[in-house]
This record gives sequence, C-alpha cells and structure tokens, in this order.
Amino acid sequence: MEFINKIVEKSKKADSLVCIGLDTDPLKIPVHLRQSGNAVLEFNKSIITATKDLVCAYKPNAAFYEAMGSIGIEILEKTCRFIDNNIPIILDIKRGDIGNTAVQYAYAAYEIFGVDAVTVNPYMGFDAIKPFLRDGKGVFVLCLTSNPSAGDFQLLDTGGQLLYERVAHAAVEWAKEGEIGLVIGATRPETMQKIRDIVEDMPILVPGIGAQGGSIMDVITNCGGKPGRTIINSSRSILYASHEKDYAEAARSSLEKLRLDINKNRSVE
Amino acid sequence: MEFINKIVEKSKKADSLVCIGLDTDPLKIPVHLRQSGNAVLEFNKSIITATKDLVCAYKPNAAFYEAMGSIGIEILEKTCRFIDNNIPIILDIKRGDIGNTAVQYAYAAYEIFGVDAVTVNPYMGFDAIKPFLRDGKGVFVLCLTSNPSAGDFQLLDTGGQLLYERVAHAAVEWAKEGEIGLVIGATRPETMQKIRDIVEDMPILVPGIGAQGGSIMDVITNCGGKPGRTIINSSRSILYASHEKDYAEAARSSLEKLRLDINKNRSVE
Repeated sequence: MEFINKIVEKSKKADSLVCIGLDTDPLKIPVHLRQSGNAVLEFNKSIITATKDLVCAYKPNAAFYEAMGSIGIEILEKTCRFIDNNIPIILDIKRGDIGNTAVQYAYAAYEIFGVDAVTVNPYMGFDAIKPFLRDGKGVFVLCLTSNPSAGDFQLLDTGGQLLYERVAHAAVEWAKEGEIGLVIGATRPETMQKIRDIVEDMPILVPGIGAQGGSIMDVITNCGGKPGRTIINSSRSILYASHEKDYAEAARSSLEKLRLDINKNRSVE
Repeated sequence: MEFINKIVEKSKKADSLVCIGLDTDPLKIPVHLRQSGNAVLEFNKSIITATKDLVCAYKPNAAFYEAMGSIGIEILEKTCRFIDNNIPIILDIKRGDIGNTAVQYAYAAYEIFGVDAVTVNPYMGFDAIKPFLRDGKGVFVLCLTSNPSAGDFQLLDTGGQLLYERVAHAAVEWAKEGEIGLVIGATRPETMQKIRDIVEDMPILVPGIGAQGGSIMDVITNCGGKPGRTIINSSRSILYASHEKDYAEAARSSLEKLRLDINKNRSVE
C-alpha cells in the first residue's frame, strides 16, 4: 500500500488532520511514572491508547530517545511496534548524508523501527534523500522550518526563487521517483499558499502549532484541509496537558479540542 | 581544554592529519569475527589499538550504529569510551533541528557518548546549531559536501555568493559564540582555497579522500597542512584494507601510507 493511501485512509476515518509528536522527555512526564524503569514507554503507550482513534499519524522524534542512550532506542522501537498497523508513523529524524550512510539511516528507520515515513534534510541534495525512497514509504523533506533562524538560509534569494521555493520545486521532481512530502512550519503562513501552489496535492507536514505559536486558521486557509495532504503536528500541548495521573485523559481532551478547532476551520474553507 | 587545542596537540604528536572514520559495517568486517555477538565492538577496538598513535582523531558515523538498533548504540557508546582521553572524537551525526530538539541531540553526543565534537547541518540556521556549542566542544558545520548531488543547492548563487560561501561566512560569525569548524568534501578542491580564505584558521574536516576519489595533493595545496586545522578523514580504505585475520595490521599499513602521502605533500607546501 502506498504511504499516501494509508495516511488518507486514517485521516478520513479519524476525521482528523492531527499528528501527535511523540517527543517524550523523561523530565516532563508525570512524577508518579518516573519511578518505573520503563516510564517513557509506559507514558507513550498510555498516550497512544488514549488518542489513537483521533489522530491521522504519530511522529516520534528520534532525538528524545537518543538522549536516553541504548535504552531509549529500545523504547523507541517498542513504541513504534505498539502502534496499530493502520496508523502511519512518521519518524522525525531530519537526516541527510551521502548515499552509503543514508542507506544505513533508512535501514534503521524502516527495518529496526518499522516506520512508514521519515523526515529528511535537503542540504546535501537528492542522492542523500534517494535511499529513503522505498515502496510504501513517505519521505518528508524540510522546506521552510518553524524556528526563528530558518531565514538564515531558507529565505535567501537564489536568482528569482527563494531557497525554500527551490526545494519545493526539487521535491516535485523527486516525487517522480517515490513518495515525497514537505515540512513547512506553521509559523510562516504567508508562504504556505505559494508552496501549496508549487507542490499541488503533495502531503505537507506542519509543525509549529501551539507551543511555537502558529495559527490554525492560517494553516487551513493556506495549506488546505484535505485528509493526508495537510498533517498538523502537535507535541507538547498534548503530551504534557496534565502532569497528574489523568495525563492520558488530559492528552485526549487537548487533542480533541485541537481536532475540532481544525475541523471548524476546514468546514468554512 | 578547548577542542582546538586537543586536536592540534594530538595531530602534532602523531605528526598526522588523518582522522579515521569508524563507519563500521557488520557485513564488511572479517568473516572470522562475525560469529561473536560483539563483533563490531571487537573490530573497532582492534582498529583503534592498531592505529591510535598515528591519527589526529576518530570519527564514528552514527548511522552505522543506529542500523544495528539498541545494541548498536551500546557498541557506539563502548567504542567512544574505549578511545584514550587525549584523542579527539568527532561524532558524525549531521543533525539539525529546532532548539528544544537540538538540545536532546547535543545531550546524546556529549553526555551519552562523551565525544569532543559533532557534525551538524546548517539548513535550519543558527538556532539549530547553537545548542551544540559548549565549552571544550567543536561543531563542524556542513559547508560543501563530497557527494554528487551537493550542487543541487550548495552551489546556488544567492546574490553574489554561492550558498556554501554564505555558510562559510555565517560560520565565521557563529565562531564568536563557540568553536566552529567546517566540513568540505575533498572532491571539490577548486573551492577549498576560497573557503580557506573566508574562514582563515578554522578547523576544516575533509571527507572524500580514497573511496570517493578526492586527491591529497589538491587538499593540502588548497586547504593547507596545519595540524588541527586540516583534518583528513578516511574510512573504508583503512577499515577494510584486509578481510582476513590481519585486518588490524592492514588497517595500520593503509593508514601509515596515507599519513606519509599527506606529509610528503605538507613538506613541499
């Protein structure tokens, strides 16, 4: 099955554009869990169980697991295996390296963690991305990111096109060889319409809602609200909605509020 | 101690600009080792023991360890801990992500693996790099890479300066806040002199010698031959110099040949 079909199907079934970013920080999970040796895994499982019918995907962020050493990698593996097969997993790794190294990163993502999609960095060009293209797998290329310094290079004028626009055009070319998507931060709504015009129906993963300050209305207006084509990530405001024993319920409530806020905007689109 | 002092000192002591890339692939190590559960660790230890007096640094490539799952991370950790304290370790991770994620990657590199330096990707700008700047740690920013597709974006004209030149100029600015170096592929000698002029004495890590085809003479002529300022990485041609029981000796011979080839060019500089 193509990645796009998997995510469109799940997004429709849940009537949701929300992807939960599993950026689980052992220092931010409820205190009562921290005594357990498997606190992070237990936390992830509870969050997933409480939210899985209302999401279009999950997006674990590799950094948070790597910071726990080998045990963290085991937790990431078990978290990915715990997620139902019909729910797409986008592993947020933002890798980019020469071909023989990219092959290793792709192996880790698809064979060790068994995920459906990854995020990658375009700086090194297509041969650093190509090893991630496989049947049934989606590859989200960083285009315009949500952080304050994104403009250091991404907004440079490269002879009539800004750098991120070049990346969007390149992504359209690369999509002839596999399933490509883009990452566009919600903090740059003014650019989203332009990118959507370039890449048409390509899946766009949108981080930066919530903690980073992006507006839902702007995202839906500019990026569109089609299932599987606009994927809105939220991490901190869902994961850490409560620091008490009700954290999983609180996560569900926070997710449900975000899902409905988005859907309200989709209906007037 | 500053990172630059550590690498200058080791480079002088070994009279060597060679950094060995520990890109250990379980499928490429000698067959007789593969039966051991700890084959990769055993291989790394033998290579390190046989070469440590002749290198200026080691550069493990995280991808190769991640592809082995949690056991690989354990091997990477043990490999880093096995390397003598006076030998700089550059962890090749090429990470780049928003601040709160970069903090996690930096924690993994410096606290879990205990390395002296990392490689990072500049696409997301300075706030994705800043969390890696710490006292005594070096941060090598990808500038012009050795792969064929490097030109997709790095060679774009951004109003009088190519993108990689902008990165080099930015690196000079960033170096006011910490120890910054650059990564420049040996396969692009024509550009090295230009970058050296921009960044002056900044450490430059040069991959792409050997398997990728870069010339030693070109590197020394254009990048210079100062200890700790030019760091020439070699991986495959040293690690897999022999597939027999003499692999560690063969690695040493291959390293010694490369070291002397480089030094011959340094002496006529």
